[in-house]
Amino acid sequence: MGVLVLGTVALDTVKTPKGIRRDIIGGSAAHFSMSARFFTKVSIVACVGEDFPQKNINLLKSKGLDLDSLSVQKGKTFHWQGEYKGDLNTAITLKTELGVLSSFKPNILKKQREIKYVFLANVDPDIQQSLLKNMHSPEIVALDSMNYWIDTKRKSLIRLLKDVDIYLANDKEAISLSQESNLIKAAKSLCRMGPSMVLIKKGEHGSLFYDGKYFFALPAYPAEEVIDPTGAGDTFAGGFMGYLAKCGKVNALTIKNALAYGTVAASFNIEGFGLEAPARLKISDLNNRFSKFKKYASF
Amino acid sequence: MGVLVLGTVALDTVKTPKGIRRDIIGGSAAHFSMSARFFTKVSIVACVGEDFPQKNINLLKSKGLDLDSLSVQKGKTFHWQGEYKGDLNTAITLKTELGVLSSFKPNILKKQREIKYVFLANVDPDIQQSLLKNMHSPEIVALDSMNYWIDTKRKSLIRLLKDVDIYLANDKEAISLSQESNLIKAAKSLCRMGPSMVLIKKGEHGSLFYDGKYFFALPAYPAEEVIDPTGAGDTFAGGFMGYLAKCGKVNALTIKNALAYGTVAASFNIEGFGLEAPARLKISDLNNRFSKFKKYASF
Repeated sequence: MGVLVLGTVALDTVKTPKGIRRDIIGGSAAHFSMSARFFTKVSIVACVGEDFPQKNINLLKSKGLDLDSLSVQKGKTFHWQGEYKGDLNTAITLKTELGVLSSFKPNILKKQREIKYVFLANVDPDIQQSLLKNMHSPEIVALDSMNYWIDTKRKSLIRLLKDVDIYLANDKEAISLSQESNLIKAAKSLCRMGPSMVLIKKGEHGSLFYDGKYFFALPAYPAEEVIDPTGAGDTFAGGFMGYLAKCGKVNALTIKNALAYGTVAASFNIEGFGLEAPARLKISDLNNRFSKFKKYASF
Repeated sequence: MGVLVLGTVALDTVKTPKGIRRDIIGGSAAHFSMSARFFTKVSIVACVGEDFPQKNINLLKSKGLDLDSLSVQKGKTFHWQGEYKGDLNTAITLKTELGVLSSFKPNILKKQREIKYVFLANVDPDIQQSLLKNMHSPEIVALDSMNYWIDTKRKSLIRLLKDVDIYLANDKEAISLSQESNLIKAAKSLCRMGPSMVLIKKGEHGSLFYDGKYFFALPAYPAEEVIDPTGAGDTFAGGFMGYLAKCGKVNALTIKNALAYGTVAASFNIEGFGLEAPARLKISDLNNRFSKFKKYASF
């Protein structure tokens, strides 16, 4: 089927209790692709600056990703600097340098307009909307966002919600956008805002899915050591959307398995800095852990 | 098989965003019994004061509970007054009047000493130990406690852990007693302290079980409205232990189903103040929600 992801390819400087890494490859589209690639062809729509190292491009290429719409633009690559303390659940953003992202206009090839599974990773909702207008007749459009856009571009985001099938949010974002007091109410309320499905990511507490009728929940995979949680949510989304695109249909069974693959992919992501762990991963690693997870979380 | 529960039968005054109730029946043994009764005969070991209303005794009797070791003593019944605000996850204790509990010495009938499944609900660990010494040859002993005892009677509690099979704790207690930084490490560490199984209750985030080798996790049942969470943990324990006692054996399958029954029982408990909701419950309600929960949480 193939999946198209609009998002960021970035340079991250990350500090966690386990160490520090400077200017490593990161960004929502990079993390998403690294897990979605196991299931389907992944086309990245993003931009980087002239400072983006060729070795990073080579890494993405070596994983079979379609980089036709990864544009190199004059200026600096989007750079995020953050730190995790204590329970590692929340990143403290120390610096954000938008660079080429501040003038990013997604431009895709004609053949990419036909891709049926689309993931709009966290960027300005107006950019997400403009990409979506270019798609021909997508079957499943999933949307991620963040508190910054909920606070500063609420109207754009709410308008965009009417055009998507699946809205992904973490627990804080779901509460913030719905203005509800608990996640069950939040999921119902968000569904009424447009998407037919809502997926709430709860970090170490797993995920909650709602399709307008039924709820479904999964715990996280049990993790003893977290090296770096950056990108875990996007890695989760990559496993989820990649699996759905591979199946080519969305029903209770494919959704449940997709959530489980997303969970398992995210559990690998946190075992190293940046893309280190998912870049090493084989499909057999993913399948083995999927089997363990089934025993862990099913009764 | 039968299960014996040592704990409190109390009078609670509870305020939540949904209302206030004064001097209603509560306590760990009362909540535990109200769900365990669906699976097996339940013997309560607790004490109340002379002020304990006969209608409460009648309520417990009408549910088929064995009250032979519920002693009525000179003085006042243990009284807890608490309030829940905001997300209802944490109780704020406003008043605790120990009353007859301050001189409680559990005294059980000879025939009760033969009961094979024992639940030591949250009371002073020295009282828990003294009850346990009276049991003849229990097969499964489960222990609950609270931060107050972890802080003030740590040595007694750690000694007691060596004599129990299952230690139940909420997430904060598990972290506090193990002094670990995350729940997976905490479960492993607690297992090394004596019990062969550890069950961590995470409230709205479900539960985590560890048997020294395998982990197993379940989400909570999706609850839109919480009326009063008091006793949810004990109701969970009642469903869990009651089901195990009914099965008469502890293995991966019985444990998983027991956890699911505990989860479902707890989800009813929070739908009313005190024992209101579980007292109205029928086994068919429990089984119907168990089936829904299986769809909700298994893949």
